[in-house]
Amino acid sequence: MKINRNYKNLNESYLFSTIAKKVQEFSAKNKNIEIIKLGIGDVTLPLCPAVIEALHNAVDEMSQKETFKGYGPEQGYDFLKNSIQNYYKKNNVSIDADEIFISDGAKSDLGNILDLFDKDNTVLIPDPVYPVYVDTNTMAGRNIVFIDANEENNFLPLPDENIKCDIIYICSPNNPTGATYNNEQLKLWVNYALKNNAVILYDSAYESFISEDNLPKSIYEIEDAKKCAIEFCSFSKTAGFTGTRCGYTVVPKELVFDEMSLNNMWLRRQTTKFNGVPYIVQKGASAVFTDVGQKQIQENLSYYKNNAKVITDTLDKLNIKYTGGKNSPYIWLKCPDNMNSWDFFDMLLTKIGVVGTPGAGFGKNGDGWFRLTSFNTFEKTTEAMERFYNLLK
Amino acid sequence: MKINRNYKNLNESYLFSTIAKKVQEFSAKNKNIEIIKLGIGDVTLPLCPAVIEALHNAVDEMSQKETFKGYGPEQGYDFLKNSIQNYYKKNNVSIDADEIFISDGAKSDLGNILDLFDKDNTVLIPDPVYPVYVDTNTMAGRNIVFIDANEENNFLPLPDENIKCDIIYICSPNNPTGATYNNEQLKLWVNYALKNNAVILYDSAYESFISEDNLPKSIYEIEDAKKCAIEFCSFSKTAGFTGTRCGYTVVPKELVFDEMSLNNMWLRRQTTKFNGVPYIVQKGASAVFTDVGQKQIQENLSYYKNNAKVITDTLDKLNIKYTGGKNSPYIWLKCPDNMNSWDFFDMLLTKIGVVGTPGAGFGKNGDGWFRLTSFNTFEKTTEAMERFYNLLK
Repeated sequence: MKINRNYKNLNESYLFSTIAKKVQEFSAKNKNIEIIKLGIGDVTLPLCPAVIEALHNAVDEMSQKETFKGYGPEQGYDFLKNSIQNYYKKNNVSIDADEIFISDGAKSDLGNILDLFDKDNTVLIPDPVYPVYVDTNTMAGRNIVFIDANEENNFLPLPDENIKCDIIYICSPNNPTGATYNNEQLKLWVNYALKNNAVILYDSAYESFISEDNLPKSIYEIEDAKKCAIEFCSFSKTAGFTGTRCGYTVVPKELVFDEMSLNNMWLRRQTTKFNGVPYIVQKGASAVFTDVGQKQIQENLSYYKNNAKVITDTLDKLNIKYTGGKNSPYIWLKCPDNMNSWDFFDMLLTKIGVVGTPGAGFGKNGDGWFRLTSFNTFEKTTEAMERFYNLLK
Repeated sequence: MKINRNYKNLNESYLFSTIAKKVQEFSAKNKNIEIIKLGIGDVTLPLCPAVIEALHNAVDEMSQKETFKGYGPEQGYDFLKNSIQNYYKKNNVSIDADEIFISDGAKSDLGNILDLFDKDNTVLIPDPVYPVYVDTNTMAGRNIVFIDANEENNFLPLPDENIKCDIIYICSPNNPTGATYNNEQLKLWVNYALKNNAVILYDSAYESFISEDNLPKSIYEIEDAKKCAIEFCSFSKTAGFTGTRCGYTVVPKELVFDEMSLNNMWLRRQTTKFNGVPYIVQKGASAVFTDVGQKQIQENLSYYKNNAKVITDTLDKLNIKYTGGKNSPYIWLKCPDNMNSWDFFDMLLTKIGVVGTPGAGFGKNGDGWFRLTSFNTFEKTTEAMERFYNLLK
C-alpha cells in the first residue's frame, strides 16, 4: 500500500505546546504569581438554559420507543435548517433549505469540502492564518499561494489581479486578527473570484461577534456571492458549542463548475462519508434560534464583548495599535517598541504573569503582533489589563 | 476551479427509492393490507436507561460553568477510550489507549481513512457489498477489483493469490449477507495482506451480534493482524446509537508503511479535519460499558436476535438456504425456485404485504438473493413470517 506522501510535507506546529511549556516552567519557579490566561481560544461560559432544556427534552425522546430517533438525514433535520433559513432572512439573505447542510463543526467541513476539488488547483490563503487551511491543502498536495495581511492593509488584504488562483480562503471576522471586511471590500473579492472562475471558502465562524451595523454577517449579503462562495458557520463561538459540536455550511445551487453542481456534489459527499449530527445536538442547536435562546446567547456574547472592550480600552489608553475586539473575540495588537512576538510574550509572562499568543505562530506576517482573547472572566480580564497598563504606561 | 471529476463516475443507487415507490403504489391500491417491513436497516428500540441517565447527567454538566466542557481531545476522552480498551481485554485483545480514536460513526471513518492512502492503490472489495466502500474509492479515483462472495463460498470469499491489491475491505459479520468469518479464514486474509504489503479495513460494526463462541469479534484476535489491519467499530447497532452518533476506530502503532506510522497520520488527519465527538455523546457511550449498561444493551440485542431466530426458523422449515441471522441482524436468503431478487420482492409485496430488500441492489452476486432484517417488532416479525410460511410451504 502506498501512503499519501503529502503528509510528509506537513509542518508540526509547536505554538501551543511551546506556550504551555514556558508557562509551566515560569509557574514552577514563581508560585506566588497568579497567572492569567488571555490566550484562551475556547468559550468558557456554559450552554444557555434554553439549549440545556432542549437537550434534556431530546434525551427524553431518545428514551421512548415512540419518539426515539435512529438515522436522520445526513444533511440535517428540517427543523434546524428552517431555523437557520429564518436567521438568514433577518439579514435579508434568502437561502433555500436544501442549500444548508448541518455539520459537526466548521473545522470538519472546511477540511472535507476539499474532497470536491481537483488536486490541481491553486489555493490563495492570507498570512497570518488559521493553520487548518494550510494543513488540509498540504495533505491534498495542492499549490498554496499566500497573500499578505499586514499593518499596511489593516490585516484585510484585497485581491491582487496579478495572482491567479482557484480556491480562496476568507475568514471574516478573522482568526487570529479579528479584522472584519466591509461590503465594498468583500465585493472586490466576489468580483475577483467570478473573473477567475474561483470558489471562495468563506469562514464565518465569528459572525455573531459583529457589533457594527454596516458590516456584513454573511458573504451572501454581497451581490453575486452565491455564484462563487461557500459559507461555513458554527455554533461554537455563537452559542458555546465547542464541546457540543454543531455548525452549518451553505452551498448555493448557483455554484456550478464544469457542469457539476457543487450543492449536488456536497450532498453526495455527505450522504456517502457522513451520517449526520446527533439528533440531540440538533435539537439543542435549534433552541439557539428561539426568542429566549437568542436573548440568552446574546447575554453570553455581551459578556465576552465587554471583556474585549476592557482590553481595547487599555490598548487605546496606551496608544497601542490593534485590530479586532469590536467585532471579534480576538484582539490583535502590535507589540510595543518593535518587539518581536516571542520577546513580548516572555515579557508579559515574566513581568506580569499574563499569557497571550505570539502572532508569529500564525504566519510570517504575524511576527511583531500578539493575540489576546476575551474568553476569560471579567474579573481576570480586568486584573490582567490593569497589570498590562501599569507595565506599559 | 477544477472540480474532482471522479464524482462524474459515481453511480446513483435507486435501490431504496425504488422500493419505497413500489410499496407506496401497492399500498395506495390495497389499503386493507397491512404492510410489514422487514427491510429496515436501522435500530428501533430506544436508548437503554443507563445511557439516558449518562446523557442527562452530561447535559447538566454543560449547564454549569464549573463542569462545562469546551473543546475536547479530537481523538476522544480518556474515560471512553479506557472503557473500550477494557472491552477489548475481555476478548483477550490488548490495545493501547492511543490506538483508539473515538469517531462520530464507522461510516465517517471508513470514508475519511482513505485520506491517508495514495490515489494509486488497488482496492479489493467483495461483491455483494455495503455501497459506501465502492463510492468513497470512486470519489478518489482508485482502481477497484471485486471478489465474488457467492453460494459456493457461503458468501465468505478467501484470498486469491492471483489478485494483487493494496487496500482490502472485510465486513464481518457482513452487511448485507450476515456471513461471519472464523479465525482460520481471517488468518488467511491477514497472511495475504502481509504478503502483499496491503492494509485491511475491517468493518466490525456488527460484532455485538456474534452469538457463536468460536467466532472472532475483532480482527486483532488473529495473530499479526495489528501489522496490517485497521478496525472500525460502532455503537450504532450495539447500543442503538444510529441517531446519537458514536463509534471508534483502532489504528495500531505497528502499522508502518513507507516509514510512516498510520497511527500518527490518522492522529494528524483527525486533529486537522475533525473536532471530536460531543462530550455529551461520549458520556452516553461510556455508560454502555458499565455492568448495568452491558446488561441493558444485551436485552435489546437479544430482542433483535430473537426476531432473527423467528425468521431463520421459518426458513429452516421451508428448506430455504440462507446466511446470517445467528451472528447478525441480517438474514440473506436464496430466492425460491431460482427467482430473481426483484421478482421475489414483487411477489412478497403483492401476495403477503411483506417488504424486504432485493439482493441485486448490493452487487451482481446479490441477484437471486434477498435480505430480511430483525429490526421490526417481535409481533410484526412473527406475523410476517407466518404469511411467508403460508405462501411458500
